[in-house]
Amino acid sequence: MKIKALVFDAYGTLYDIQSVAAITDQAFPGYGEIITQIWRIKQLEYTWLRTLMRRYEDFSVITRESLAYTLRCLGLKNDAAVFERIMEKYVHLDLYPDALATLTALHGRKLAILSNGSTEMLNTLVANSGLDRVLDATISIDSKRAFKPAPEAYTLIESKLGIAPAEVLFVSSNPFDACGAKAFGLNVAWIERVTSEAMALAFGKNDLVPPLTMFKAIRTQMDELGLKPDFRIKALADLPELLKSSA
Amino acid sequence: MKIKALVFDAYGTLYDIQSVAAITDQAFPGYGEIITQIWRIKQLEYTWLRTLMRRYEDFSVITRESLAYTLRCLGLKNDAAVFERIMEKYVHLDLYPDALATLTALHGRKLAILSNGSTEMLNTLVANSGLDRVLDATISIDSKRAFKPAPEAYTLIESKLGIAPAEVLFVSSNPFDACGAKAFGLNVAWIERVTSEAMALAFGKNDLVPPLTMFKAIRTQMDELGLKPDFRIKALADLPELLKSSA
Repeated sequence: MKIKALVFDAYGTLYDIQSVAAITDQAFPGYGEIITQIWRIKQLEYTWLRTLMRRYEDFSVITRESLAYTLRCLGLKNDAAVFERIMEKYVHLDLYPDALATLTALHGRKLAILSNGSTEMLNTLVANSGLDRVLDATISIDSKRAFKPAPEAYTLIESKLGIAPAEVLFVSSNPFDACGAKAFGLNVAWIERVTSEAMALAFGKNDLVPPLTMFKAIRTQMDELGLKPDFRIKALADLPELLKSSA
Repeated sequence: MKIKALVFDAYGTLYDIQSVAAITDQAFPGYGEIITQIWRIKQLEYTWLRTLMRRYEDFSVITRESLAYTLRCLGLKNDAAVFERIMEKYVHLDLYPDALATLTALHGRKLAILSNGSTEMLNTLVANSGLDRVLDATISIDSKRAFKPAPEAYTLIESKLGIAPAEVLFVSSNPFDACGAKAFGLNVAWIERVTSEAMALAFGKNDLVPPLTMFKAIRTQMDELGLKPDFRIKALADLPELLKSSA
């Protein structure tokens, strides 16, 4: 395997989506975690549903609509200023602690993001977090009007970077995205941030479950879609070693 | 509005998906509800993801794969006989209590099902529950190899029944399906089985949530997809009155 480019998913892979919970809890004390989880679950659902219905709207619209859904569902009064304050966090998400050091260590290969985010959201997020200094490209699926895992989204890697799928390692912690990239023909490293052992232990014979655990149960374990990533890693920090040994 | 045909979604609309919980709890005592909820959440996700990835497999495969995911996720040992016993329930789902009486009362108009289910699953389910005596047609999306809410799925109503979208009332309790049908151009009655008031009351400032409540929060409230069903009803039993007053 000759890898010329590493292409990263953004939300949940380089950026910690759970970092919105502090803001949502500040806005609605006691509801921070449940808002965060329903919001993220619906946000992704809406990307899939709008793509299927051929009613594309960009990720900033979808992020607003899924937040509106969440607050309505929870019966929380939707104050415009509070709403904007929560939304603002989406362009100031925390990086995973090993993200910047890992990208810096990978210097020499082409490094890019391919994300569902709109061009504007992504460029702002990448600049705010300082990743603009280490990335060669930030690619939004915007121009294709189809969200991942639609194959159209992944075609942008070759068309923007000029590197064939066989020479790209795509890195995502989102199982659906790892599967979509694999189905498309990319080499794929899936970041298994929640091990199956830890997952199983999170459940007992309980009637009640923390919303974060429910989220993890539906969005962090490798999906049964008849596809398998080429590599499983535990963290971004495992990438330099993986590339030394396999590429 | 001149309505010549009523077309119903099956799973969650005529048939109560929650009726699998008794079997899952018998198979894995204490885990019945959590299995039921994760299974159903993943089952629908897989229909969307496989359609987007253009890796169609029929609903029986998806139902098996999402159950396998669920049991793995929960760390529950997957015994083949137990697995088959749970799967078997999917062709013996309980009807909602008002389903048969409502369909009988609607006699005179064309009555059909349009469902994600495979032809075989649906035909068995419909026969087992006695709905074959009141339905004119049971339509599976199988032949289109695209699950709802992809528009291809809804085209089958006109091609199978010979009735134009403007003369069809599509009935679903699934918000994504009501939106998909509306986007396609059908008249839509959405069954709001969980009112927004009941939903909001289900949450407090709690750290822990029952899995069924979490399911309801993400799959029973009208979605924010820029679409609105024509009618909101509380139950199937409201349909005869609705048709009298509006059609």
